[in-house]
Amino acid sequence: MKEIKVGLIGFGTVGSGTAQVLFEQKERLKKRTGTSIVLKKIADICTKSLPDHFTGTELTADAAEIINDPDIDIVIELIGGTTLAKKFILDAIANGKHVVTANKALLSLHGMEIFTAAAAKNVEIGFEASVGGGIPLIKSLKEGLVANKILSIMGIMNGTGNYILTQMTDHGTDFHDVLKDAQKKGYAEADPTYDVEGIDTAHKLVILMTMAYGMDVRLEDISCEGITRIEPIDIQFAEEFGYRIKLLAISRNHDDHVEARVHPTMVPEKHMLANINGAYNGFYFTGDMVDNIMLYGQGAGKMPTGSAVVADVVDIARNITHNCINRVPSLSYMADQIAPRRITPMEELRCPYYFRFSTLDKPGVLSRISGILGQHDISIESVIQKGRERKGTVPIVMRTYEANEASVCHALKEINAMETTTAETVKIRILVDDEE
Amino acid sequence: MKEIKVGLIGFGTVGSGTAQVLFEQKERLKKRTGTSIVLKKIADICTKSLPDHFTGTELTADAAEIINDPDIDIVIELIGGTTLAKKFILDAIANGKHVVTANKALLSLHGMEIFTAAAAKNVEIGFEASVGGGIPLIKSLKEGLVANKILSIMGIMNGTGNYILTQMTDHGTDFHDVLKDAQKKGYAEADPTYDVEGIDTAHKLVILMTMAYGMDVRLEDISCEGITRIEPIDIQFAEEFGYRIKLLAISRNHDDHVEARVHPTMVPEKHMLANINGAYNGFYFTGDMVDNIMLYGQGAGKMPTGSAVVADVVDIARNITHNCINRVPSLSYMADQIAPRRITPMEELRCPYYFRFSTLDKPGVLSRISGILGQHDISIESVIQKGRERKGTVPIVMRTYEANEASVCHALKEINAMETTTAETVKIRILVDDEE
Repeated sequence: MKEIKVGLIGFGTVGSGTAQVLFEQKERLKKRTGTSIVLKKIADICTKSLPDHFTGTELTADAAEIINDPDIDIVIELIGGTTLAKKFILDAIANGKHVVTANKALLSLHGMEIFTAAAAKNVEIGFEASVGGGIPLIKSLKEGLVANKILSIMGIMNGTGNYILTQMTDHGTDFHDVLKDAQKKGYAEADPTYDVEGIDTAHKLVILMTMAYGMDVRLEDISCEGITRIEPIDIQFAEEFGYRIKLLAISRNHDDHVEARVHPTMVPEKHMLANINGAYNGFYFTGDMVDNIMLYGQGAGKMPTGSAVVADVVDIARNITHNCINRVPSLSYMADQIAPRRITPMEELRCPYYFRFSTLDKPGVLSRISGILGQHDISIESVIQKGRERKGTVPIVMRTYEANEASVCHALKEINAMETTTAETVKIRILVDDEE
Repeated sequence: MKEIKVGLIGFGTVGSGTAQVLFEQKERLKKRTGTSIVLKKIADICTKSLPDHFTGTELTADAAEIINDPDIDIVIELIGGTTLAKKFILDAIANGKHVVTANKALLSLHGMEIFTAAAAKNVEIGFEASVGGGIPLIKSLKEGLVANKILSIMGIMNGTGNYILTQMTDHGTDFHDVLKDAQKKGYAEADPTYDVEGIDTAHKLVILMTMAYGMDVRLEDISCEGITRIEPIDIQFAEEFGYRIKLLAISRNHDDHVEARVHPTMVPEKHMLANINGAYNGFYFTGDMVDNIMLYGQGAGKMPTGSAVVADVVDIARNITHNCINRVPSLSYMADQIAPRRITPMEELRCPYYFRFSTLDKPGVLSRISGILGQHDISIESVIQKGRERKGTVPIVMRTYEANEASVCHALKEINAMETTTAETVKIRILVDDEE
């Protein structure tokens, strides 16, 4: 039986999950591929010994022992970070090895450099595990939806953020309390910035846009707003309007320009994305032929992510044994077809908005606020003013018709400067449901 | 540029959609594959002429002109049915041509014969379009989830049936009225038997089980019950218990035996499958590594199905140009690994049940019914008896704890024979939500 040898750098959560998948599924993979995939070496600086049943696998503290091993066909990088990981990957490529990685931060920052190096050495880069854990969405975009122009990408791409929002929704708990609890339970990291500020979601959106549109995307062009300012009262008002608040990545393909943004969004409660709860992820694509498609599953975790890493290893192993490397281009379009495109500036965005104004309960306030909105061409669709007293002030809540982001910013600046305004206005963009 | 030549047999809804995808996406497919995919011939007995922009494509009434054309690499069969379609496919295979088909009925009945013939000639069979329209789920099972033992397959696999149930749920309309309306609108066929009796769903389940488990499945072993007996009153009671009624395919992999059944099911309202409405489909898989995954989209339709057909054509085209035919086994396991396995007889099933008894409003009836259930080891979890008079009788509605199907059948037989019972008891199986 043909044999493919694999080296694994990084034996943390996902690394040990990946090794476990390779051992537990060894016989199944033989039955499916006719090939034996052998985990020859694991490199990790903190690990002193391997589990007993990892027979035949060597442990080393030195990644170079994998990168320079002429016997190893595929190097799996699972140490994370963007410095050492980048060096290891580029060194492995230079040695003619195929690479599988789950490193979304690295790919969203230095993807083009890595893919260019890989193309020059005719090796493959597998990165299914970098987005959406075990959900086979990279493969679906590259192959299953190959006959589509992707018109839009939307998704809940961060399990920690969605877990926090779900807890806030179900129990009316404050953001900071839920976060503390999530950290205690291990659902959120000690430094949760990447998750709650939308940065992790933006990393994933960069990768998906690159693949879906055949486009060279820069992370800094993506507008990114987190969930730290969402309050339970906004979630309650959202419900009254028929929405759920989700941290969405949204990208729309307008041919000459492309929307790309990450922000808390009011999602109509009947939309599939509104019903994705807890640590689950949902990726919602619209193709010009296939219409709406959603892929749903656990977007992180030891074994689901290991499942995706091993799927990539198998894919590359099949290409090695069938002598068809780069049968599918790594970025789904032929390398010479990938080009930068204009990202729509946020000021040009048009969508409906939710506003929560905090004001003193004085006569004429509502009239002045709506006057300012009118001057900026922002039409009000509905208002809730309930006199729920809150820290001495009254919330006025509005839903607008479609309005322009720049106008909204100008109007809110004026309203926030009013002497009756007691706190900065909360603004949440509303998703228009195109499914109905 | 390399060129792959394709012949299309059948120019109906899906056939014309497929041809449209091939023309509209021609340039995109070149950018993604470096190959030109040319639709050389279309065979159809009813079509007199092709659209003007189909330049270079010949029209013929004789499928043999495609099957015997030495120039054609891939034959697409989209005529449906199980007689002529089977002959055309086997003839094409015998001529060494690869085949792409959306024919679920044919594959669920004669799949093994076709796959064996294809293996003998070393050609490929693409059948992504046979299940779930444009949703890339066959590829996901074969490749993306390759490192998983699939533990269960559940799904809403028929858009017509789901459209009817959704209309009944949203508007309280009677099954037959919704069906008539759906037929008028073209959502249901003149003979809706396959859709509403669950047969189409069973066809799809056979294909998915074969692939997911590496198992030789026979259609006649799948227990199949349709939605024609569901009444709006059951949908209302379901809501009171926190369920939605869906026509589900359910298969669970118990190693030594495999559950395989299609029937109306009460799905907990928080389950993802409960929220799939209208003509959409949802395929919910559980893998031992990846946990729960769901793929959602339009399970039928001209362009979505065309998208899947063309994805298969591209897959095979890549294999031809890279000289790696059968890089992935058609049935996802190596041919010698596929074996029959025992299908669990329905009598052995255990699940919770919903019953609606129609009885005369007489003292002691509830006590007698619960007595009979108790004798058969069926424990009642909750009862609703509201005295809603209905054609002179009163409905008594119950939800049971997990019970055995055979015991339930015996008990209902006794209860149906009671002199106070005015109509056959309605029985709907309840899905246990393993997601929470």
